[in-house]
Amino acid sequence: MMDEVKRGFELVGIGRVEKRGERVGVKILDKYREGLKGLEAFSHAWVLYWFDKNDRQAERDKLLVHPRGDRSNPLTGVFACRAPVRPNLIGLSLCEVVSIEGGVVYVGDIDAFDGSAVLDVKPYIPATDRASGAVRVADYAAERG
Amino acid sequence: MMDEVKRGFELVGIGRVEKRGERVGVKILDKYREGLKGLEAFSHAWVLYWFDKNDRQAERDKLLVHPRGDRSNPLTGVFACRAPVRPNLIGLSLCEVVSIEGGVVYVGDIDAFDGSAVLDVKPYIPATDRASGAVRVADYAAERG
Repeated sequence: MMDEVKRGFELVGIGRVEKRGERVGVKILDKYREGLKGLEAFSHAWVLYWFDKNDRQAERDKLLVHPRGDRSNPLTGVFACRAPVRPNLIGLSLCEVVSIEGGVVYVGDIDAFDGSAVLDVKPYIPATDRASGAVRVADYAAERG
Repeated sequence: MMDEVKRGFELVGIGRVEKRGERVGVKILDKYREGLKGLEAFSHAWVLYWFDKNDRQAERDKLLVHPRGDRSNPLTGVFACRAPVRPNLIGLSLCEVVSIEGGVVYVGDIDAFDGSAVLDVKPYIPATDRASGAVRVADYAAERG
Protein backbone atom coordinates (compact mmCIF):
# COMPACT_ATOMS: atom_id res chain seq x y z
CA MET A 1 0.00 0.00 0.00
CA MET A 2 1.35 3.34 -0.95
CA ASP A 3 -0.12 6.72 -0.24
CA GLU A 4 -0.26 9.25 -3.00
CA VAL A 5 3.03 10.53 -4.28
CA LYS A 6 3.17 14.16 -5.30
CA ARG A 7 2.62 14.90 -8.96
CA GLY A 8 3.07 18.01 -10.98
CA PHE A 9 6.66 19.05 -10.49
CA GLU A 10 7.75 22.01 -12.49
CA LEU A 11 11.31 21.90 -13.67
CA VAL A 12 13.17 24.66 -15.47
CA GLY A 13 16.44 24.72 -17.37
CA ILE A 14 18.86 27.06 -15.59
CA GLY A 15 21.58 26.82 -18.21
CA ARG A 16 23.41 24.37 -20.35
CA VAL A 17 26.62 22.50 -20.88
CA GLU A 18 28.95 24.08 -23.41
CA LYS A 19 31.87 22.08 -24.69
CA ARG A 20 34.20 24.14 -26.87
CA GLY A 21 37.31 22.15 -27.62
CA GLU A 22 39.30 21.88 -24.42
CA ARG A 23 37.05 24.20 -22.47
CA VAL A 24 34.06 22.76 -20.73
CA GLY A 25 31.62 25.24 -19.31
CA VAL A 26 28.36 25.20 -17.44
CA LYS A 27 26.67 28.32 -18.69
CA ILE A 28 24.02 29.70 -16.38
CA LEU A 29 21.23 31.84 -17.78
CA ASP A 30 21.56 35.52 -16.93
CA LYS A 31 18.45 35.49 -14.79
CA TYR A 32 19.98 32.89 -12.46
CA ARG A 33 23.56 34.12 -12.49
CA GLU A 34 23.38 35.69 -9.04
CA GLY A 35 22.98 32.18 -7.66
CA LEU A 36 26.65 31.52 -8.39
CA LYS A 37 27.85 34.02 -5.82
CA GLY A 38 30.34 32.34 -3.52
CA LEU A 39 30.83 29.21 -5.62
CA GLU A 40 34.43 30.26 -6.29
CA ALA A 41 35.26 29.26 -2.70
CA PHE A 42 34.67 25.63 -3.61
CA SER A 43 37.06 23.40 -5.52
CA HIS A 44 34.32 21.05 -6.69
CA ALA A 45 30.64 21.16 -7.48
CA TRP A 46 27.84 18.83 -8.43
CA VAL A 47 26.15 19.55 -11.70
CA LEU A 48 22.67 18.16 -12.23
CA TYR A 49 21.60 18.00 -15.83
CA TRP A 50 19.01 16.38 -18.04
CA PHE A 51 19.73 13.39 -20.28
CA ASP A 52 18.13 15.19 -23.20
CA LYS A 53 18.99 12.58 -25.78
CA ASN A 54 16.99 9.92 -23.97
CA ASP A 55 13.87 11.97 -23.43
CA ARG A 56 11.49 9.39 -24.79
CA GLN A 57 9.03 7.36 -22.79
CA ALA A 58 10.61 4.08 -23.91
CA GLU A 59 13.91 5.09 -22.33
CA ARG A 60 12.22 6.30 -19.18
CA ASP A 61 10.35 3.03 -18.81
CA LYS A 62 13.54 0.98 -18.74
CA LEU A 63 14.24 -0.34 -15.26
CA LEU A 64 16.98 -2.89 -15.98
CA VAL A 65 20.17 -2.34 -17.93
CA HIS A 66 23.65 -3.69 -18.36
CA PRO A 67 25.74 -1.06 -16.56
CA ARG A 68 28.04 0.94 -18.80
CA GLY A 69 26.46 -0.72 -21.82
CA ASP A 70 28.65 -3.75 -21.21
CA ARG A 71 26.69 -6.96 -21.60
CA SER A 72 29.17 -8.78 -19.40
CA ASN A 73 27.81 -6.70 -16.51
CA PRO A 74 24.72 -8.41 -15.10
CA LEU A 75 21.30 -6.85 -15.60
CA THR A 76 21.02 -4.20 -12.93
CA GLY A 77 18.30 -1.85 -11.82
CA VAL A 78 18.61 1.73 -13.00
CA PHE A 79 18.67 2.84 -9.35
CA ALA A 80 21.75 0.68 -8.84
CA CYS A 81 23.71 2.27 -11.65
CA ARG A 82 24.17 5.63 -13.27
CA ALA A 83 22.70 4.78 -16.65
CA PRO A 84 21.28 7.72 -18.61
CA VAL A 85 17.95 5.94 -18.84
CA ARG A 86 15.75 6.10 -15.76
CA PRO A 87 12.29 7.38 -14.84
CA ASN A 88 13.62 10.87 -14.25
CA LEU A 89 16.43 11.70 -16.65
CA ILE A 90 18.57 13.50 -14.10
CA GLY A 91 22.33 13.18 -14.43
CA LEU A 92 24.67 13.92 -11.54
CA SER A 93 28.35 14.67 -12.09
CA LEU A 94 31.05 15.80 -9.72
CA CYS A 95 33.10 18.50 -11.43
CA GLU A 96 36.25 20.36 -10.59
CA VAL A 97 35.56 24.10 -10.58
CA VAL A 98 38.36 25.58 -12.67
CA SER A 99 37.14 29.16 -12.89
CA ILE A 100 33.99 31.19 -12.98
CA GLU A 101 33.76 33.85 -15.64
CA GLY A 102 30.57 35.83 -15.81
CA GLY A 103 27.81 33.29 -15.89
CA VAL A 104 30.01 30.38 -16.94
CA VAL A 105 31.43 27.84 -14.54
CA TYR A 106 34.40 26.24 -16.26
CA VAL A 107 34.89 22.71 -15.08
CA GLY A 108 37.58 20.07 -15.45
CA ASP A 109 35.15 17.92 -17.36
CA ILE A 110 31.60 16.68 -17.19
CA ASP A 111 30.09 13.43 -18.30
CA ALA A 112 27.34 15.18 -20.28
CA PHE A 113 26.86 16.05 -23.90
CA ASP A 114 27.35 19.54 -25.24
CA GLY A 115 24.06 21.35 -25.06
CA SER A 116 22.59 19.36 -22.18
CA ALA A 117 20.17 21.36 -20.10
CA VAL A 118 21.47 22.12 -16.63
CA LEU A 119 19.06 21.84 -13.70
CA ASP A 120 21.14 22.70 -10.67
CA VAL A 121 24.62 23.35 -9.35
CA LYS A 122 25.50 22.44 -5.77
CA PRO A 123 28.81 22.77 -3.98
CA TYR A 124 30.71 19.64 -2.99
CA ILE A 125 30.82 19.53 0.79
CA PRO A 126 32.96 16.63 2.03
CA ALA A 127 31.35 16.57 5.47
CA THR A 128 28.14 15.26 3.95
CA ASP A 129 29.09 14.20 0.40
CA ARG A 130 31.94 11.86 1.18
CA ALA A 131 31.05 8.44 2.51
CA SER A 132 32.86 7.55 5.67
CA GLY A 133 33.62 4.09 6.94
CA ALA A 134 33.67 1.05 4.70
CA VAL A 135 32.40 1.68 1.21
CA ARG A 136 31.12 -1.23 -0.84
CA VAL A 137 30.24 -1.14 -4.53
CA ALA A 138 29.03 -3.67 -7.06
CA ASP A 139 31.71 -5.40 -9.09
CA TYR A 140 30.96 -3.36 -12.19
CA ALA A 141 31.75 -0.15 -10.28
CA ALA A 142 35.00 -1.28 -8.65
CA GLU A 143 37.99 0.90 -9.34
CA ARG A 144 40.46 -0.82 -11.57
CA GLY A 145 44.09 -0.45 -10.62
CA MET B 1 23.85 35.73 -25.54
CA MET B 2 22.36 32.40 -24.74
CA ASP B 3 20.84 29.92 -27.08
CA GLU B 4 17.57 28.36 -26.14
CA VAL B 5 17.55 26.13 -23.13
CA LYS B 6 15.27 23.14 -23.24
CA ARG B 7 11.85 23.55 -21.66
CA GLY B 8 9.17 21.11 -20.82
CA PHE B 9 10.77 18.54 -18.57
CA GLU B 10 8.47 15.93 -17.22
CA LEU B 11 9.27 14.79 -13.74
CA VAL B 12 7.57 11.98 -11.87
CA GLY B 13 7.59 10.94 -8.23
CA ILE B 14 9.09 7.46 -7.94
CA GLY B 15 8.45 7.09 -4.23
CA ARG B 16 8.69 8.94 -0.98
CA VAL B 17 10.60 9.31 2.21
CA GLU B 18 9.05 7.50 5.16
CA LYS B 19 10.28 8.27 8.63
CA ARG B 20 8.80 5.97 11.25
CA GLY B 21 10.54 6.54 14.55
CA GLU B 22 14.04 5.19 14.26
CA ARG B 23 13.51 3.72 10.82
CA VAL B 24 14.08 5.87 7.82
CA GLY B 25 12.97 4.43 4.53
CA VAL B 26 12.90 5.43 0.91
CA LYS B 27 9.81 3.72 -0.36
CA ILE B 28 9.77 3.11 -4.08
CA LEU B 29 6.46 2.76 -5.89
CA ASP B 30 5.70 -0.79 -6.98
CA LYS B 31 5.91 0.07 -10.64
CA TYR B 32 9.54 1.16 -10.25
CA ARG B 33 10.66 -1.44 -7.75
CA GLU B 34 12.58 -3.51 -10.28
CA GLY B 35 14.95 -0.57 -10.62
CA LEU B 36 16.39 -1.40 -7.20
CA LYS B 37 17.87 -4.69 -8.37
CA GLY B 38 21.53 -4.79 -7.43
CA LEU B 39 21.49 -1.81 -5.10
CA GLU B 40 22.19 -4.11 -2.17
CA ALA B 41 25.80 -4.41 -3.42
CA PHE B 42 26.37 -0.76 -2.52
CA SER B 43 26.98 0.59 0.96
CA HIS B 44 25.80 4.08 0.08
CA ALA B 45 23.42 5.75 -2.34
CA TRP B 46 22.37 9.20 -3.38
CA VAL B 47 18.74 10.03 -2.92
CA LEU B 48 17.30 12.85 -4.97
CA TYR B 49 14.08 14.27 -3.63
CA TRP B 50 11.86 17.31 -3.96
CA PHE B 51 11.76 20.10 -1.39
CA ASP B 52 7.96 19.88 -1.31
CA LYS B 53 7.50 22.36 1.48
CA ASN B 54 9.10 25.14 -0.54
CA ASP B 55 7.18 24.57 -3.73
CA ARG B 56 6.11 28.16 -4.18
CA GLN B 57 7.40 30.53 -6.81
CA ALA B 58 8.67 32.98 -4.19
CA GLU B 59 11.00 30.31 -2.81
CA ARG B 60 12.13 29.27 -6.26
CA ASP B 61 12.95 32.84 -7.17
CA LYS B 62 15.39 33.26 -4.28
CA LEU B 63 18.97 33.31 -5.50
CA LEU B 64 20.79 34.55 -2.39
CA VAL B 65 20.52 33.13 1.10
CA HIS B 66 22.43 32.93 4.35
CA PRO B 67 23.66 29.32 4.31
CA ARG B 68 22.15 27.10 6.94
CA GLY B 69 19.79 29.90 7.89
CA ASP B 70 22.58 31.48 9.91
CA ARG B 71 22.73 35.21 9.37
CA SER B 72 26.39 35.24 10.38
CA ASN B 73 27.09 33.36 7.15
CA PRO B 74 27.47 35.85 4.30
CA LEU B 75 24.81 36.07 1.62
CA THR B 76 25.59 33.28 -0.79
CA GLY B 77 24.16 32.13 -4.08
CA VAL B 78 21.88 29.14 -3.94
CA PHE B 79 24.24 27.31 -6.32
CA ALA B 80 27.01 27.76 -3.75
CA CYS B 81 25.08 26.18 -0.93
CA ARG B 82 22.59 23.41 -0.36
CA ALA B 83 19.65 25.54 0.69
CA PRO B 84 16.20 24.02 0.10
CA VAL B 85 15.23 27.06 -1.94
CA ARG B 86 16.51 27.18 -5.51
CA PRO B 87 15.06 27.33 -9.02
CA ASN B 88 14.64 23.55 -9.12
CA LEU B 89 13.74 22.17 -5.72
CA ILE B 90 15.93 19.10 -5.98
CA GLY B 91 17.57 17.85 -2.82
CA LEU B 92 20.58 15.54 -2.88
CA SER B 93 21.56 13.43 0.11
CA LEU B 94 24.17 10.76 0.54
CA CYS B 95 22.66 7.91 2.52
CA GLU B 96 23.98 4.74 4.03
CA VAL B 97 22.06 1.77 2.66
CA VAL B 98 21.12 -0.26 5.72
CA SER B 99 18.84 -2.82 4.10
CA ILE B 100 16.43 -3.23 1.25
CA GLU B 101 13.12 -4.87 2.06
CA GLY B 102 10.67 -5.17 -0.75
CA GLY B 103 10.40 -1.76 -2.25
CA VAL B 104 11.85 0.08 0.72
CA VAL B 105 15.46 1.15 0.97
CA TYR B 106 16.20 1.66 4.64
CA VAL B 107 18.86 4.28 5.11
CA GLY B 108 20.97 5.52 8.00
CA ASP B 109 19.28 8.87 7.76
CA ILE B 110 18.27 11.44 5.20
CA ASP B 111 18.10 15.20 5.42
CA ALA B 112 14.54 15.28 4.07
CA PHE B 113 11.13 15.54 5.65
CA ASP B 114 8.83 12.57 6.04
CA GLY B 115 6.65 12.37 2.97
CA SER B 116 9.05 14.09 0.59
CA ALA B 117 8.67 12.90 -2.97
CA VAL B 118 11.64 10.89 -4.20
CA LEU B 119 12.90 11.51 -7.73
CA ASP B 120 15.84 9.18 -8.12
CA VAL B 121 18.21 6.83 -6.37
CA LYS B 122 21.78 6.43 -7.59
CA PRO B 123 24.57 4.32 -6.18
CA TYR B 124 27.57 6.02 -4.59
CA ILE B 125 30.59 5.23 -6.73
CA PRO B 126 33.80 6.55 -5.16
CA ALA B 127 35.72 6.52 -8.44
CA THR B 128 33.60 9.39 -9.72
CA ASP B 129 31.76 10.71 -6.64
CA ARG B 130 34.71 11.35 -4.36
CA ALA B 131 36.78 14.45 -5.07
CA SER B 132 40.47 13.71 -5.36
CA GLY B 133 43.28 16.14 -4.75
CA ALA B 134 42.88 19.27 -2.70
CA VAL B 135 39.32 20.04 -1.73
CA ARG B 136 38.38 23.61 -0.83
CA VAL B 137 35.10 24.72 0.65
CA ALA B 138 33.64 28.02 1.79
CA ASP B 139 34.09 28.86 5.46
CA TYR B 140 30.47 28.10 6.25
CA ALA B 141 30.93 24.53 5.01
CA ALA B 142 34.18 23.76 6.80
CA GLU B 143 34.13 20.71 9.01
CA ARG B 144 34.32 21.67 12.63
CA GLY B 145 36.63 19.56 14.73
